[in-house]
Amino acid sequence: MEKSIQILRFLGIDMINAANSGHPGIVLGAAPAVYELYRNHLMADPKNPDWFNRDRFFLAAGHGSALLYATLHLAGYDIALEDLKQFRQLDSLTPGHPEYGHTAGVDSTTGPLGQGVAMAVGNALAESYLSAKFNHKDFKIIDHYTYALCGDGDLQEGVTMEAMSIAGRLRLNKLIVMFDSNDIQLDGPTDNATNDNIEQKVRSMNWNYHLVKKPNDVNALNKAIEKAKNSDKPTFIEVKSIIGYGSKDQGKSETHGSPIGVEETSAMRERMGFEYKPFEIPDEAYLEFKNTFGKRGADAYAEWMKMLAKYKDSYFEDYRKLINIIEKNIEIDFDSIIPQVDLGTKEATRNTIGKLINALSPELPEMIGGSADLTASTKVKGIDGNFDFDNRIGRNINFGVREHAMAAIINGMTLHNLKAFSGGFFVFADYMKPAIRLSALMSIPSTFIFTHDSVAVGEDGPTHEPVEQLAMLRTTPNLTTIRPANANETRHAFRFAMSALTKPTVIVLTRQNTTVTHKVNYETFRQGAYIAKDLENCEGILIATGSEVELALSVQEKLKKEHNVYVRVVSMPSVELFLAQPKEIQERIIPSSCTKRLAIEMGASLTWYRFANHVFGIDRFGKSGKSNEVIASFGFTAENIAEYFLNM
Amino acid sequence: MEKSIQILRFLGIDMINAANSGHPGIVLGAAPAVYELYRNHLMADPKNPDWFNRDRFFLAAGHGSALLYATLHLAGYDIALEDLKQFRQLDSLTPGHPEYGHTAGVDSTTGPLGQGVAMAVGNALAESYLSAKFNHKDFKIIDHYTYALCGDGDLQEGVTMEAMSIAGRLRLNKLIVMFDSNDIQLDGPTDNATNDNIEQKVRSMNWNYHLVKKPNDVNALNKAIEKAKNSDKPTFIEVKSIIGYGSKDQGKSETHGSPIGVEETSAMRERMGFEYKPFEIPDEAYLEFKNTFGKRGADAYAEWMKMLAKYKDSYFEDYRKLINIIEKNIEIDFDSIIPQVDLGTKEATRNTIGKLINALSPELPEMIGGSADLTASTKVKGIDGNFDFDNRIGRNINFGVREHAMAAIINGMTLHNLKAFSGGFFVFADYMKPAIRLSALMSIPSTFIFTHDSVAVGEDGPTHEPVEQLAMLRTTPNLTTIRPANANETRHAFRFAMSALTKPTVIVLTRQNTTVTHKVNYETFRQGAYIAKDLENCEGILIATGSEVELALSVQEKLKKEHNVYVRVVSMPSVELFLAQPKEIQERIIPSSCTKRLAIEMGASLTWYRFANHVFGIDRFGKSGKSNEVIASFGFTAENIAEYFLNM
Repeated sequence: MEKSIQILRFLGIDMINAANSGHPGIVLGAAPAVYELYRNHLMADPKNPDWFNRDRFFLAAGHGSALLYATLHLAGYDIALEDLKQFRQLDSLTPGHPEYGHTAGVDSTTGPLGQGVAMAVGNALAESYLSAKFNHKDFKIIDHYTYALCGDGDLQEGVTMEAMSIAGRLRLNKLIVMFDSNDIQLDGPTDNATNDNIEQKVRSMNWNYHLVKKPNDVNALNKAIEKAKNSDKPTFIEVKSIIGYGSKDQGKSETHGSPIGVEETSAMRERMGFEYKPFEIPDEAYLEFKNTFGKRGADAYAEWMKMLAKYKDSYFEDYRKLINIIEKNIEIDFDSIIPQVDLGTKEATRNTIGKLINALSPELPEMIGGSADLTASTKVKGIDGNFDFDNRIGRNINFGVREHAMAAIINGMTLHNLKAFSGGFFVFADYMKPAIRLSALMSIPSTFIFTHDSVAVGEDGPTHEPVEQLAMLRTTPNLTTIRPANANETRHAFRFAMSALTKPTVIVLTRQNTTVTHKVNYETFRQGAYIAKDLENCEGILIATGSEVELALSVQEKLKKEHNVYVRVVSMPSVELFLAQPKEIQERIIPSSCTKRLAIEMGASLTWYRFANHVFGIDRFGKSGKSNEVIASFGFTAENIAEYFLNM
Repeated sequence: MEKSIQILRFLGIDMINAANSGHPGIVLGAAPAVYELYRNHLMADPKNPDWFNRDRFFLAAGHGSALLYATLHLAGYDIALEDLKQFRQLDSLTPGHPEYGHTAGVDSTTGPLGQGVAMAVGNALAESYLSAKFNHKDFKIIDHYTYALCGDGDLQEGVTMEAMSIAGRLRLNKLIVMFDSNDIQLDGPTDNATNDNIEQKVRSMNWNYHLVKKPNDVNALNKAIEKAKNSDKPTFIEVKSIIGYGSKDQGKSETHGSPIGVEETSAMRERMGFEYKPFEIPDEAYLEFKNTFGKRGADAYAEWMKMLAKYKDSYFEDYRKLINIIEKNIEIDFDSIIPQVDLGTKEATRNTIGKLINALSPELPEMIGGSADLTASTKVKGIDGNFDFDNRIGRNINFGVREHAMAAIINGMTLHNLKAFSGGFFVFADYMKPAIRLSALMSIPSTFIFTHDSVAVGEDGPTHEPVEQLAMLRTTPNLTTIRPANANETRHAFRFAMSALTKPTVIVLTRQNTTVTHKVNYETFRQGAYIAKDLENCEGILIATGSEVELALSVQEKLKKEHNVYVRVVSMPSVELFLAQPKEIQERIIPSSCTKRLAIEMGASLTWYRFANHVFGIDRFGKSGKSNEVIASFGFTAENIAEYFLNM
């Protein structure tokens, strides 16, 4: 046992030495904890790394990637020794921080501190929901634990505190978080930055707390995990450790992020009586993992497959739904369940989304979500009551005023194949940005719904009026931002989000009414932009999104009637989708020959010069006042914009 | 006393009724707490609302604005009854949420939950630092309390937890936070979202905790505040209250954000035996505030002015420095203290900033700051040791891994006239965005320094490599984002930030070396863009920022030497500053006649079409690998870009 831990340690620092980059401190310190977890607890099958009912492990302290990769290699995942030698090299299987979807056995991308614990909460929540939804007597078809390993930094992050508070409130008892407690962080002793009483803090949030006092005491950790498995609360295990254990600088922050170096590593081998050369791994180490982790997981997987076959016979309808979730099939007829919205419908698109969620949720058990204490305003509310310890099938999650954790929890649930969605005021997308980014980086289809999308918010004023948030999201890679013009576009946007597989979707909605002035089919909508209304002899183009499409149509009308000027109106619900179109489609909608173009949007103008030489936007903060007065004060009236166009 | 509280309540709901918009719940519930604070504790002079040594009050629950305005009116601030009647109307003195700099007596903009408490922490930190720095025996020239009132929502926000943990660690004993504890939030009972043991949680972070059990018990609150004033820790006072007190829906979430209505308000007047008509205020109410709050503050202000005169005589040098801080004078000769950097200097701009901070700090006692557990990497570290309970003049703040609170605390310190600066990896600007936005909205000159500014980060990979962050910040109104090309531009950027008065500055720096390939003076730099190197017969323009300027110069050279193509290179350290220039300056640097323009930046391309028809950017996430290999893999080599330009 001790030997295997040493092998993990040296493999990790050999990798870091080879790369001349990485974080040896946690590798040396936390190797026993990770070893214990994989050897004796984690239930997963390296041959079937995507097994739906596996235990998940979130390495919240993502800078411990070398330790994770070394463990996954020994544990039989599809990571060769050669991959370990390529640690942190371009296009290797072993990048600097763990990347979900890139390396087998990596359950999430981590590195930005705080995200890992919060995603683990989401994952445990998903497990709790799915097990309540699909298990039957004698069929614990969903039944697994969610583990996380975090460091001091994670616990200092607010998002972790938000998420732990939720997890305690919801009694997510199958969530087990280990805290690699080494009293050191990058800038020195942890005490420099915090002297929280962690036990007291954790208990105040309704978690169990266990302390593994002696560094490297895997037996004590084992006992703590066993207790945790049989609890009615989430469990937090503080595992004391020594950062950079065994190196000459052990216990010092110097070991956090600088390679030990070949020479000192060699001296360490001497001192610690470790007989193997760099990257040398004795067969017995593989064997140990094979006989413990490997066998346990393979057996469990085989058992589960048998159970699934019986489950199919006994509960076919549930089986079918569950398989759809596992295989990420969305096999429903959107057109019949959420039909297109009639021409002339006048509705705030936040109300539309509420209806869509209600209509679609009964068909898709994977739909679950909620708002950050704003359901009354956002209308983003899951069905079947509040998810709670006494209603595990409730699909509305009361996130409280915890936007950041909400977004990370949505990601954690999405990692468990749920179609999870959040709701909030658009201006507070800022609070969620780190988690939204991570969903995009992981290529998972989280859905983030926002309402109150512009200065039209009115009375609440500039603190509550988004201006630059659209630009922030449209420039985030691998994310689809949609700002629908009306109820019908909102319908398409939601269909798009619920069908998405490899990208998160942001949907940005109004508080105020908009009208379905024209129709567009889903296929055209998916191109990101389309001609809302054309006129013959067109001598200009108005490009608009969201509530400004209706305004643009008024401008068009006014220019025609009062000035004999004929322009095209393009609705562009998604800049990203449009930019992904072939040139000829882009050219058809916005012909390069037509250079007189005006983009109209109640938000920052800077990104719009991609499409137009003139932009009617808002490049200052909003104002408090009656909605229509605020809008008018920024010049967003048909008259004013028509005038502007004529003077362009 | 009871009558004055009723007057505050009814004034508040009359305002909300008049606006038909606002949040009566907190007005009715928290009126006693705010009343008690202003009547018996808060030391401020309504005739001198900017008095430097006043107590500050952060209404973290900014939606209680009506209560604050009503109180400020009664307390004698420059808010007329007519202003109250204009609550939430366009351009009124009484916008939907309190706005700093807009309304006398408002100590900060609040509304986005969590920010208020964190800014209060920063303010208390500033007081602690300034008092240690400037007080002398018999001269407590800086000596005041910082108060905040927060709600359930604030406490659910992670940023509040981060900030409270820091405040407890640093023993900011003159910080007093009242918690309006009404057990209700927008989506229903608070218990739906949280069942934290608040006392235990607060104590775990080394705060005092007091409970005012009975709603409206101002005497108990008075005692708790008195205790708090004489403590060696920050104090948290949970004040039980009843949301919407007195209305028919009291105790229900319905009262949170919907006006009570004229009819029900009239019924309330009956039920509560409140004799005054809407907006009617008896003279005795004014008189009570005048004789308590008003007199106390006026006397204290007069005393302080006397003390200041003596202080001037006794400690002229300190007096001079303090007055500079109070009057926001930066009267130093930047050129001699931080001279321009020599041509040819090769340096990572993160190293430059470290030197600049060290050179400038001794001259400017208002400079204070630190990093989020990354000083070793960012080099952003204040001088004179760590600020701590036993070193209150330390100017380095160990923020821990708490980026969000860091930014909010910077704002709180800046509100106290300090030149406060933060340090962090650029990708984690995401974590700080809500607070950065708020600094811009408040028009205060916070300085946010970021390093590791692109995919050049290398091995740490995409989780640590910013792509879209420049776009996010450049589109944020009233913010100046600067990405300097080299050590000399960094010097200018820092001078700019330290001289700024009405806008926050973001400085974005490299991890890798860059060279001072050319010089520019400060005045030209401040225009946001300038010609780095021109060639005759110019037939195109390369626009670049940061480390890409050097690259652009190589491209220029290559085009000339190998292809006889002559282009101009424009360095554009700040898009915002350039866009603020008169058209003729813009035209001189980027002439509209020269249409062949390429923008080069290792970040999202979308915003660059404002200046160029072609953009060589990065619109996907980064990669883990050796820095130069990662950069090359994105095509950022002189050869490749020259080729690209030729094919444009």
